[in-house]
Amino acid sequence: MEAYAVESRQREELIDVTHLVQEAVNTSGRQSGVAHCFVPHTTAGITINENADPDVRRDILYKLAKEIPQSDGYHHAEGNSDAHLKASLMGFSQQVLIEKGRLVLGTWQAVYFCEFDGPRRRRLIIKVQAFD
Amino acid sequence: MEAYAVESRQREELIDVTHLVQEAVNTSGRQSGVAHCFVPHTTAGITINENADPDVRRDILYKLAKEIPQSDGYHHAEGNSDAHLKASLMGFSQQVLIEKGRLVLGTWQAVYFCEFDGPRRRRLIIKVQAFD
Amino acid sequence: MEAYAVESRQREELIDVTHLVQEAVNTSGRQSGVAHCFVPHTTAGITINENADPDVRRDILYKLAKEIPQSDGYHHAEGNSDAHLKASLMGFSQQVLIEKGRLVLGTWQAVYFCEFDGPRRRRLIIKVQAFD
Repeated sequence: MEAYAVESRQREELIDVTHLVQEAVNTSGRQSGVAHCFVPHTTAGITINENADPDVRRDILYKLAKEIPQSDGYHHAEGNSDAHLKASLMGFSQQVLIEKGRLVLGTWQAVYFCEFDGPRRRRLIIKVQAFD
Repeated sequence: MEAYAVESRQREELIDVTHLVQEAVNTSGRQSGVAHCFVPHTTAGITINENADPDVRRDILYKLAKEIPQSDGYHHAEGNSDAHLKASLMGFSQQVLIEKGRLVLGTWQAVYFCEFDGPRRRRLIIKVQAFD
Repeated sequence: MEAYAVESRQREELIDVTHLVQEAVNTSGRQSGVAHCFVPHTTAGITINENADPDVRRDILYKLAKEIPQSDGYHHAEGNSDAHLKASLMGFSQQVLIEKGRLVLGTWQAVYFCEFDGPRRRRLIIKVQAFD
């Protein structure tokens, strides 16, 4: 099991971590299986989306923030309930398949760490499992 | 494979089931791997979120209900389309990693069964898989 | 690893692919384990929901479209940012457990490929993993 540091620089940010997932696979030496990617936080998640036009990431964060603003009748005193909900909507894990030592991703796909309450130093846990 | 009963007492409720996941791991005797947690329903899901302040759970359910009310031009005659959508948004499974026989969760994380159309008696299925 | 073609006929559509998941399990000959189902696109996802009343699928797509319309201040020039967000909300993978060669699904559950930017010819990747 590997743990990687992910540094966010804004309150909300989609950070490409595809290279970390590939690095974990390389370190494991496994050729076929699945990379379990897990975010051990409650105001950050992980998703997959387009790797080409950065406007897609901007639009995803923009629309989530528009519908789930930071203030909206919440009770939680820390003022980040929006981030907790957004993290649950994106999810806390991704299972990325591996074939011939490479991640099985579509041409336009990248894996994104989803920061919703940064900037912070975060962790991404990856455990690689081999199977035929 | 283990199946646990989960009893909900309200229409919408986030029920901490972390101890059930740990129990399934203990029963399996596995030290390293993943616990596949699966909800075999269509109006209930499963997520991860904060284990400390109960207001976080309240705020998540409050905001989901505010944006996805029970009545909103739906066609489905049972009157619970909101619950079907909320369940898909949270997801029907969580994969929790295991190291040294313990769940790999962040300090503030718990696993929550998400009831959206209770109160009901529900089931949570957990299958533990070992790997190095 | 198997790749199946999925043909969508509308811009937004939930397509039952449960039989493809079962077919992949049959092809693998595995009796116990998990079927990793993965969508290698960025404007389509995969979820689980009710297999009985088609109004549930209609209501899910209706409500997602109502809250996340195709135009809403997005920057991405392709005009399908709504589809990118909806795909991330549903998720790009489902892990379906297998027991005695059959999918472990609830009575009312089916697996749905979620098209959000069709009609198109899409791919669904399924990799079956055996374990006790």
